[in-house]
Amino acid sequence: MKEKDLLYGNLDDTYEEIAAIRRHLHRHPELSFQEKETPEYIAAFHEKLGHRVRTNVGGNGVVAYLEGANPGPTIALRADFDALPIQEETDLPFQSENPGVMHACGHDGHTATLLGLAKVLNGMKEDLAGTVVFIHQHAEEMIPGGAKPMIEDGCLDGVDVIFGTHLQAQVPLGEIRYRVGPLQAAADFFDIHIQGKGGHGASPHQTKDSILIGSQLVTNLQQIVSRKVDPLDLAVVSVGSFEAKNANNVIADTALLKGTVRTFDKKVQDLIENEMETIVASTCALSGAEGVLNYQRGYPALVNHAEETAFVAELAKEVPGVKEVTESPKIMGGEDFSYYLQHVKGTFFFTGAEVIGKPTYPHHHPKFDIDERGLLIAAKVLGTAVLDYMAENK
Amino acid sequence: MKEKDLLYGNLDDTYEEIAAIRRHLHRHPELSFQEKETPEYIAAFHEKLGHRVRTNVGGNGVVAYLEGANPGPTIALRADFDALPIQEETDLPFQSENPGVMHACGHDGHTATLLGLAKVLNGMKEDLAGTVVFIHQHAEEMIPGGAKPMIEDGCLDGVDVIFGTHLQAQVPLGEIRYRVGPLQAAADFFDIHIQGKGGHGASPHQTKDSILIGSQLVTNLQQIVSRKVDPLDLAVVSVGSFEAKNANNVIADTALLKGTVRTFDKKVQDLIENEMETIVASTCALSGAEGVLNYQRGYPALVNHAEETAFVAELAKEVPGVKEVTESPKIMGGEDFSYYLQHVKGTFFFTGAEVIGKPTYPHHHPKFDIDERGLLIAAKVLGTAVLDYMAENK
Amino acid sequence: MKEKDLLYGNLDDTYEEIAAIRRHLHRHPELSFQEKETPEYIAAFHEKLGHRVRTNVGGNGVVAYLEGANPGPTIALRADFDALPIQEETDLPFQSENPGVMHACGHDGHTATLLGLAKVLNGMKEDLAGTVVFIHQHAEEMIPGGAKPMIEDGCLDGVDVIFGTHLQAQVPLGEIRYRVGPLQAAADFFDIHIQGKGGHGASPHQTKDSILIGSQLVTNLQQIVSRKVDPLDLAVVSVGSFEAKNANNVIADTALLKGTVRTFDKKVQDLIENEMETIVASTCALSGAEGVLNYQRGYPALVNHAEETAFVAELAKEVPGVKEVTESPKIMGGEDFSYYLQHVKGTFFFTGAEVIGKPTYPHHHPKFDIDERGLLIAAKVLGTAVLDYMAENK
Amino acid sequence: MKEKDLLYGNLDDTYEEIAAIRRHLHRHPELSFQEKETPEYIAAFHEKLGHRVRTNVGGNGVVAYLEGANPGPTIALRADFDALPIQEETDLPFQSENPGVMHACGHDGHTATLLGLAKVLNGMKEDLAGTVVFIHQHAEEMIPGGAKPMIEDGCLDGVDVIFGTHLQAQVPLGEIRYRVGPLQAAADFFDIHIQGKGGHGASPHQTKDSILIGSQLVTNLQQIVSRKVDPLDLAVVSVGSFEAKNANNVIADTALLKGTVRTFDKKVQDLIENEMETIVASTCALSGAEGVLNYQRGYPALVNHAEETAFVAELAKEVPGVKEVTESPKIMGGEDFSYYLQHVKGTFFFTGAEVIGKPTYPHHHPKFDIDERGLLIAAKVLGTAVLDYMAENK
Repeated sequence: MKEKDLLYGNLDDTYEEIAAIRRHLHRHPELSFQEKETPEYIAAFHEKLGHRVRTNVGGNGVVAYLEGANPGPTIALRADFDALPIQEETDLPFQSENPGVMHACGHDGHTATLLGLAKVLNGMKEDLAGTVVFIHQHAEEMIPGGAKPMIEDGCLDGVDVIFGTHLQAQVPLGEIRYRVGPLQAAADFFDIHIQGKGGHGASPHQTKDSILIGSQLVTNLQQIVSRKVDPLDLAVVSVGSFEAKNANNVIADTALLKGTVRTFDKKVQDLIENEMETIVASTCALSGAEGVLNYQRGYPALVNHAEETAFVAELAKEVPGVKEVTESPKIMGGEDFSYYLQHVKGTFFFTGAEVIGKPTYPHHHPKFDIDERGLLIAAKVLGTAVLDYMAENK
Repeated sequence: MKEKDLLYGNLDDTYEEIAAIRRHLHRHPELSFQEKETPEYIAAFHEKLGHRVRTNVGGNGVVAYLEGANPGPTIALRADFDALPIQEETDLPFQSENPGVMHACGHDGHTATLLGLAKVLNGMKEDLAGTVVFIHQHAEEMIPGGAKPMIEDGCLDGVDVIFGTHLQAQVPLGEIRYRVGPLQAAADFFDIHIQGKGGHGASPHQTKDSILIGSQLVTNLQQIVSRKVDPLDLAVVSVGSFEAKNANNVIADTALLKGTVRTFDKKVQDLIENEMETIVASTCALSGAEGVLNYQRGYPALVNHAEETAFVAELAKEVPGVKEVTESPKIMGGEDFSYYLQHVKGTFFFTGAEVIGKPTYPHHHPKFDIDERGLLIAAKVLGTAVLDYMAENK
Repeated sequence: MKEKDLLYGNLDDTYEEIAAIRRHLHRHPELSFQEKETPEYIAAFHEKLGHRVRTNVGGNGVVAYLEGANPGPTIALRADFDALPIQEETDLPFQSENPGVMHACGHDGHTATLLGLAKVLNGMKEDLAGTVVFIHQHAEEMIPGGAKPMIEDGCLDGVDVIFGTHLQAQVPLGEIRYRVGPLQAAADFFDIHIQGKGGHGASPHQTKDSILIGSQLVTNLQQIVSRKVDPLDLAVVSVGSFEAKNANNVIADTALLKGTVRTFDKKVQDLIENEMETIVASTCALSGAEGVLNYQRGYPALVNHAEETAFVAELAKEVPGVKEVTESPKIMGGEDFSYYLQHVKGTFFFTGAEVIGKPTYPHHHPKFDIDERGLLIAAKVLGTAVLDYMAENK
Repeated sequence: MKEKDLLYGNLDDTYEEIAAIRRHLHRHPELSFQEKETPEYIAAFHEKLGHRVRTNVGGNGVVAYLEGANPGPTIALRADFDALPIQEETDLPFQSENPGVMHACGHDGHTATLLGLAKVLNGMKEDLAGTVVFIHQHAEEMIPGGAKPMIEDGCLDGVDVIFGTHLQAQVPLGEIRYRVGPLQAAADFFDIHIQGKGGHGASPHQTKDSILIGSQLVTNLQQIVSRKVDPLDLAVVSVGSFEAKNANNVIADTALLKGTVRTFDKKVQDLIENEMETIVASTCALSGAEGVLNYQRGYPALVNHAEETAFVAELAKEVPGVKEVTESPKIMGGEDFSYYLQHVKGTFFFTGAEVIGKPTYPHHHPKFDIDERGLLIAAKVLGTAVLDYMAENK
């Protein structure tokens, strides 16, 4: 298909601009829900291309529309653009100029990829049969996230299918990872406040010992995963914080537990929240105390659609620069791309961007970095998905 | 016995001075191990009476000696004089002038009682057959306490018997409480440091979960009292603090537990420390983690001598102002008078000093107060003990 | 007092008959609530002495009345006469002739003591000022015991005071042990039936795991003694039986726990029963299961009256053969003499009867034995109590 | 392919004989490792067809060889033939004539399927390019199973690939279920013997309470699945039996726990056995007691080979009678077909055989039954696998 050759050639030609965009964004990171310059930069880029642009979509989001010359399906591509509250410790020449804030998860790369691709596809407008919707999402890093309000504000209106990718610093350059069905976990959070009755450590009988209650609770919570969840399902329940700091010789009046729950299936998520309610109430009742569970749902599990996932996995094999297309294991971390997939068909895949010749640092690390050639590969796979999807859905 | 009538009459005459001393001390409280003006005041008082005085005994302690005209036994009386780090909230006209420091445990009263009694006994010198040693002890409120170093510095040298009392804000005026054998508990303290292995809340299998380990430990410690201590013995093991404050989505690297142990018998104390060692090690081993128990012995249990206790209980019945002499229950709190009783015979008793017509506040409360008439009764009981003991041990 | 000399001399003369009675009874033991020949034997003995006798009192009990020549108080003496379901393994020449039944707790001795004393006191009738009531009680070894129905059937009618003793194989001959207040524990029993939901061991999520629930319950019950009972009170809660026998690869449908509770104070007993109700319900609720607690009260705690205890402790010191009178520790085992002390004043004491030159076996052991000279001492102490009490309460 | 048409037609013609064989076997079930008539019947059947037959292979196993006219691969087909210790409660006209023994898992059907297919393939010998090895396995129902000794006795010698199926009473007729990778769990068994120290329920301090220890152990074992196993792996640890039956008023001397472990990965299996060792030792150490873990490995996890599974899933779609080919969920129960797959490539799949119009009873139920048309479908799928494999591997 000669359009593909055109796509790849033009992207190759745009690579330096893509890298420059990424570096600009990397210098000027902005925190979730506080993005201002970044969406202005994005909007200006699309406006210069002549795209119709909506700003302040569901908050700080930007949506741009590229109409092809011919009728056809409406295909959304999504990139997130918020940064993290981390002080950068790399030795890159384009380090963050915003102290304590850093693009340590690759969202600068996602955005640069999408802008570069937008420019190239704009130049191929005459060959396009359908519409491309560029969803530039704010606030992926912080619950409740930007995806939900952007959808509520219409970013998916008329969209037939959505594609998205995440650059991966720990996946080799040239590797694309897909997975049908559940890919990333629902990440929920909870606080449990135990109200016992304080007193003197020498007189436990006049108290309701919040530390004992909290300890029994942590132990009892283990039975959710070991006994209550179907062994064929995946789930994690972890208590990460236990606060009941007092003098040696008292009985604690209160204790505060905090933790997280990870699941891949809403039924399991519901089951766990219910079991936690039961276990908190019953454990506190052992001592006649009161417990309050505050269970906050994070992003739902990201569940890729089968056909669209197979579609991307298949086409990726033929994309220049892609050396390997593999099935991804499930990932316990969350991603609010999951909301889009609850509304329209589509898939989310991983694009390898490991830096060779230096130690590899995980996402959210102060020394996090990516190989920028991963951006080019990501742009080619997403662009191919646009062309192929239009071709197959005339 | 006409000496007793003299004693009681003279103490009655000295009552206003005793109260004045107490109020002076109440205005000028000093923290444990930081006492300076108080021991100077005490030493000056005794010197004015012509008593031989030792200062800086075992630290800030003061010991004064009253030699009777005739030979006889050497009888020690002890009063402690340190105050607490509490901001006074009473509406007394003689409130603390030392911000954040307060005589909230009655030690001002103990000292005033002993000084008033010293003055009266000094006036009866010709009737006394033996020596009275006034032990003014610093630092009762803070481990390791003043009693131990004062003994090491010779305050009990030559002493045949020792008597002491504690004013009790929650015991009615006119009541004296005694108890043969164990009266106040040994109060020990412990810290347990758990070194697990931190990680992400979604990946418990790569960690050693310090919060789970700490929780199992708190639960397992219950079995010491429920299974390991002889049901006929008394013991308390309480964890008062559990520190493992983190974000929701981590597994805690470490946890710090703090608590107290109360016992009345050294064998039980030894048993508990040993069991704690075993339980800390075994519970941490469940997860392949490390735990360190730091067990610090507080004051030993206060064990009254049988004969001397019966002696005081009996004589107290005849002391003017005493309406009732009852057996005290065991008290779970500690008192370093216990050290004296390990070296010489003697007894420690409680003197009621409840304020009527106002709410009663417990010891160590910012609104703590006592009825000063309790001081007079205490002085009479202690003075009677001196006279009777001399009479019986010529 | 010449009556005492008479008492002691006559008892010395009757010693061989007392021993013979004990051996006869030892040969013919009868189980609790199944006693037939023993009460007939006792009744015949008293009838021969001319005592008024009531039989079938509250079941198999026998009560005999000795009226002194002069008016005075009514004093009850109690001896129990039932045996145990134990196959004797001693090498005594007067072994049990009733297979599987044995006097392994000394009740044969108690009865022989009381009959011998009855005979001697009968002979001193002219010297007696008051009435002696001989309470021969059946069924002390088996809840609900014989004391309660005998009291309901009038055995204490008109009684002013009651005395009783227990021979002790593990206390030296010549030692008498008394204790004011609580002496023997209330011994309660409980069963807990857990109704979970069975299933396959590979599918825990479809079950309610009764073994896990029972295990959590055993652990949670520890907190009653460690946290809920005042450390100054005594209590034991023990689970002795855990029944949930199944194949390896199932989840248990039900579990049955059995245990015992020991206390010395009805308030503590009530507290524990309440806490157990709470803990059973809450622990089962953790898994959505049901638990039923069947709590059966045994004998109440035996609480000696202060004055009567001091009275016996004092007089015992002067009784020939008594070498030492000591304070008994509290005993965790139960005794239904406690019921008598809820109705009339009195005391229960221990009489040493250790066999020297052979291994000492505990009560209820197949090789249990006593030194019969303990019977003579017990008779003398009880007889002295009768004479002294009459003398002091004319 | 005309051979396939021949295969299907001939199998249809043989259906009544297949059903008759199944009914004969159903009437004459034999327990694992006690099979005698069944292997004789099978051997005779093959001998009549002229196949080379090995008997007593690895015990009671039978292996028969059909040599095709042309050279080609060696393909093994396996059917198991042992029955269960269950008293049949169906109303079938061909009920078990062996009291207490029943084909309640469909092995009669497996064997009839394989014999019917053997007859048909024998008739197509001229069309076959390769060898078919009919593995008739004894003792699948009882660890250590028949597969292992049959392999050791050479049943897989020269075999290139193996196929097998299990009839499923709870899967609709016409449905075939496959799964790449882990399909059935490793099913291990364990006993834990706790040696505490017995005593009286009123004196826990003189004991090591085996029931408390066992209870802590059951609770602690929960942490293996909740904390120690990677959430992405599957595992179950269940305690099914807790034996410590005693009187109410004792402390248990010993306790015996029994349970099962299910895993899909040898690394997880090793991890769990290690963790159990640690937890048993550490939990017993809490009370100074001893524990012994006896961990017995059952069949390993059954792991299907990817290519061979895809091969069968694909060909099954075209087999007459097959309406649906679906991915099977993982199954927590074990199957010793797993051993064959450790030695040669192959796959194990499920063939639906649900009876319509009657209640469906699970495998191992006294009323278990299957729709015999499932046997025909199974034979066709297996036969197709033989033909296709030979065609593809000339």
